[in-house]
Amino acid sequence: MDLTSIKDPSFLKDMSISELEQLSEEIRQFLIENLSNTGGHIGPNLGVVELTIALHKVFDSPKDKFLWDVGHQSYVHKILTGRAGQFDTLRQYKGLCGFPKMVESEHDVWETGHSSTSLSGAMGMAIARDIKKEKSHIIPIIGDGALTGGMALEALNHIGHEQKDMIVILNDNEMSIAPNVGALHNVLGRLRTAGKYHWVKEELEWLLKKIPAVGGTLATTAEKVKDSLKYLLVSGVFFEELGFTYLGPIDGHDYEQLFENLQYAKKTKGPVLFHVITKKGKGYHPAEADKTGTWHGTGPYKIDTGDIIKPVNAPPSWSGLVSGTVQKLARKDERIVAITPAMPVGSKLTGFAEEFPERMFDVGIAEQHAATVAAGLATQNMKPFLAIYSTFLQRAYDQVVHDICRQNLNVFIGIDRAGLVGADGETHQGVFDIAFLRHLPNMVLMMPKDENEGQHMVNTAIKYDNGPIAMRFPRGNGYGVPMDNELHTIPIGQWEVLKEGTDAVILTFGTTIPMAMESAMLLEKQGVSVRVVNARFIKPLDENMLHEIFSSELPVLTVEEAVLQGGFGSAVLEFAHDVGYHNAVVDRLGIPDHFIEHGSVKELLNEIGLTKEGIIDRVQSLLPKKQKRA
Amino acid sequence: MDLTSIKDPSFLKDMSISELEQLSEEIRQFLIENLSNTGGHIGPNLGVVELTIALHKVFDSPKDKFLWDVGHQSYVHKILTGRAGQFDTLRQYKGLCGFPKMVESEHDVWETGHSSTSLSGAMGMAIARDIKKEKSHIIPIIGDGALTGGMALEALNHIGHEQKDMIVILNDNEMSIAPNVGALHNVLGRLRTAGKYHWVKEELEWLLKKIPAVGGTLATTAEKVKDSLKYLLVSGVFFEELGFTYLGPIDGHDYEQLFENLQYAKKTKGPVLFHVITKKGKGYHPAEADKTGTWHGTGPYKIDTGDIIKPVNAPPSWSGLVSGTVQKLARKDERIVAITPAMPVGSKLTGFAEEFPERMFDVGIAEQHAATVAAGLATQNMKPFLAIYSTFLQRAYDQVVHDICRQNLNVFIGIDRAGLVGADGETHQGVFDIAFLRHLPNMVLMMPKDENEGQHMVNTAIKYDNGPIAMRFPRGNGYGVPMDNELHTIPIGQWEVLKEGTDAVILTFGTTIPMAMESAMLLEKQGVSVRVVNARFIKPLDENMLHEIFSSELPVLTVEEAVLQGGFGSAVLEFAHDVGYHNAVVDRLGIPDHFIEHGSVKELLNEIGLTKEGIIDRVQSLLPKKQKRA
Repeated sequence: MDLTSIKDPSFLKDMSISELEQLSEEIRQFLIENLSNTGGHIGPNLGVVELTIALHKVFDSPKDKFLWDVGHQSYVHKILTGRAGQFDTLRQYKGLCGFPKMVESEHDVWETGHSSTSLSGAMGMAIARDIKKEKSHIIPIIGDGALTGGMALEALNHIGHEQKDMIVILNDNEMSIAPNVGALHNVLGRLRTAGKYHWVKEELEWLLKKIPAVGGTLATTAEKVKDSLKYLLVSGVFFEELGFTYLGPIDGHDYEQLFENLQYAKKTKGPVLFHVITKKGKGYHPAEADKTGTWHGTGPYKIDTGDIIKPVNAPPSWSGLVSGTVQKLARKDERIVAITPAMPVGSKLTGFAEEFPERMFDVGIAEQHAATVAAGLATQNMKPFLAIYSTFLQRAYDQVVHDICRQNLNVFIGIDRAGLVGADGETHQGVFDIAFLRHLPNMVLMMPKDENEGQHMVNTAIKYDNGPIAMRFPRGNGYGVPMDNELHTIPIGQWEVLKEGTDAVILTFGTTIPMAMESAMLLEKQGVSVRVVNARFIKPLDENMLHEIFSSELPVLTVEEAVLQGGFGSAVLEFAHDVGYHNAVVDRLGIPDHFIEHGSVKELLNEIGLTKEGIIDRVQSLLPKKQKRA
Repeated sequence: MDLTSIKDPSFLKDMSISELEQLSEEIRQFLIENLSNTGGHIGPNLGVVELTIALHKVFDSPKDKFLWDVGHQSYVHKILTGRAGQFDTLRQYKGLCGFPKMVESEHDVWETGHSSTSLSGAMGMAIARDIKKEKSHIIPIIGDGALTGGMALEALNHIGHEQKDMIVILNDNEMSIAPNVGALHNVLGRLRTAGKYHWVKEELEWLLKKIPAVGGTLATTAEKVKDSLKYLLVSGVFFEELGFTYLGPIDGHDYEQLFENLQYAKKTKGPVLFHVITKKGKGYHPAEADKTGTWHGTGPYKIDTGDIIKPVNAPPSWSGLVSGTVQKLARKDERIVAITPAMPVGSKLTGFAEEFPERMFDVGIAEQHAATVAAGLATQNMKPFLAIYSTFLQRAYDQVVHDICRQNLNVFIGIDRAGLVGADGETHQGVFDIAFLRHLPNMVLMMPKDENEGQHMVNTAIKYDNGPIAMRFPRGNGYGVPMDNELHTIPIGQWEVLKEGTDAVILTFGTTIPMAMESAMLLEKQGVSVRVVNARFIKPLDENMLHEIFSSELPVLTVEEAVLQGGFGSAVLEFAHDVGYHNAVVDRLGIPDHFIEHGSVKELLNEIGLTKEGIIDRVQSLLPKKQKRA
């Protein structure tokens, strides 16, 4: 069928299983073809084709509510709810979002991006439904990786206690972004291989009947043993103990099994844990065979070969540079331990893991735990390197405050994907970290201008022993600058003048340095002489340089790829007024007070005016004021 | 014995059980007497007297490491490590801290205050120990309440997976701050009442031997059944499934049981879950009989009657005012649902719970889940009231960003204990909330000047339907101002002039308004006319009023009981410079860039110069500058 003709999922109601199988095949082809052009989360979506179709056939969306945890597996849902025609714009500027989005469809009732939120959201919806005495099914769909996130476990605990009607679909695909970690995964693993449990169960029941009942006590005991079979034979015990009715494991690619069990779940009172086994990348060989997570989310690729289309001769990635430098330092410094919350591949820590398996810990999707493990290590004079994306560090805010900064521990936080990240959009932009870290006592926060400075900063962070130190760096690749062979350290709080100038000063750092330099060059041609400063320490500021600037009464423009409220520019303002430079002319350019959606980083920077033209305009607008006042 | 003569716990090694029982009695009396004067966490500490003594006898601190989760149960540990002589200064300015504190003793190896961090910290220490090839026991002591916190569950999962040697003491006292919530607690409950399991186990083992072994299959099956007894009879299955060796339940007031099991735990490889049952308040009747959590932490009390000494005729508490107003509004608005993470008593929600049991949810110590449940409710057009302490809201930062603000949902966050909290000290000061909320798009943040404005603000928050809205309010009581009978709403972003003035402006809100008014009155006598503004909206600012102020070139002092970096004063600076008032004279008074320890709020405010004298000094220092520039 023409998938773009689908308006809503009602057409599924009359379809036979063989027709659904045909549809599944068509959706798979559609995804493989479209994503080969746009890129996207191919693996997770190929895995949930049958599951998504079955859910939409058995339940009535949007009255019944699907909450897609993390949300990158919602493409099939998007196709079934009338959005196939927009897939050529997937994850592109003003195009279809890669995650559920309420403005796109009434079928998207819960927006996600970060992991492990769906159960709590579902609990809120279930409470609302019951207070309003409405009838509907609330169905969060959560992966086995996301289930290790603390808030999902908090939610399981609460849902089990309250016994609200809810069907939790546990989509167990043996691999989240990286192979899963943790004991919970072992439980699921045992479940997966239980296989023959039906047979063993029957045998045991037969045996129990043979045991003579001698008095009441024994009968009771036998009852208990019978009850315990469940514990013994299916490790669903874990969820049963929490108060869920456990159903599974169910083959997530078998419509008959799915329908039979979903119908049963639909009738069950109280919370149901519906355990379905799916295969990531199902139906596309390169993705199906993937062991490393490469096909979790990709850029464009060649369908026939499965080759991912990469820029030729791209400079080294920032993640690779940082993790590689840490690895190099770890050869001489046994105190170094790397910690990642489920991102060993994204953070390019696989090399470190191979060389130092006993000093590398992937703790699973568990950012809070990751941060506090680092704190625990630091109390023992170790040097933990916490590799974490800016957006996910948000989830460890309290641990950074309470465990790391308050105890003033030597933790090195490598803040990856800082700034705009592009196609992943508003849930993933790394734009808040300066605002949520800068106000924390003891914290040092820095960002390098290029990968050579980056390696020296990593060295600086490892050598620093006066408390927590964080280095933010962007998504993507460096510039390909020449790299020094010897590593040195950078004095904490010391900025660097990149270009001298006598009319105005631009204070900036990291990704916005090139546009600031270009602007300064263009302004130079207009006769305006602008100093450009690599303000590589966001905290502490270079107070000597700021005194010099403000006492010269030079107007200042701060430029940052981060939110303006409470950001770097605010720190400069605070300094000026705290010291008493109340006539300081300071203007700030950065990310305004709204969430920034998906698109290429370039398009997004254009949209918010964080461009060389924007910088030139702002500098020019500052000049007359300076002249007026002089 | 004279407890103040204790230097370290080595004296315990030679003591007999009867001597230890005598010591326990003396420590209990010491605690009951001392805390009757100072106040403190009496219930939790009376509960762990034997446990703490047993731990210090069996293990060798500080080589072996105790991590006291939350940490308010560390008083006995403090006595045994040489700090009995300082108990008259407990929780007082420059006195003994109510939580573990590294600077106090080498036996305090991990600082706490917030819940659920000890397991992650212990994991970090265990990794460090193994890398360094050292020998030591790592022993986190965590309550059943704290175990429901997501990060503790993340840690259990990871510890079970890594199989590090560690003894997790689960101190199950049937009641954390409020009666526990959640399915996990039910599991523990079943465990507690298992009682006769030894007997049942023996009987079953006898039975199993009678079953004839017919071939290999059956033998294997019998083995499995045997293995399942563990599952059946002790619900330690939950922890065993996660990879722990489960020991318990153990009577935490019985030295013989404690020693026997601790010795066994000491020899066990891999992680041990040591489940000990204790009675909060043990040995002091009023605390032991407590059902509501009153005796969890108290002020001074009369030993003989158990009467808690309260100020006479104190005005109503802030928590009571806020929750009471929400309760009143809930009678007319069925959309209102209250959510608390384990603080129904502290947040004074017991009245609401009685009147609206089906609209009140205590989710346990699970701040992340609490925030996202509120988000889920709001998607269904409900009006969730999330009652949460400022310091604990830190743990839900990402949920506020990602689930509440990003989806722009109508959640009302009541931020209790905002500002300095006093005796609980640096882990509990509610001083970061402005800095971590102000930069979030869609957020409205406000603070009332008194309890009458507070009730109107609660009404404003409930009526507001344009996104998230938060009201911060302090710990303790209001002023006893007259209360309006009719509730009205306050226009969002509208400030209020409390006193006119022509020489300078003080912008402030909440708790610092009285000192600002006093300062203004005193300045008036010196001939300085100061306008005082109730800047009750921290976000959005009253831009009309700010335009008027800055265009009049009046110098401005901002005053806030919150951190200065990224705070309210910074917002005022940002506005001034964004609009182009580059000659604005703005000075900021607030909490400087370090953690503030325990003491009375008054002493702490004095220490940091957040006083009327401080305000007067700052205003005076601003005036000449204004004259110079005029």
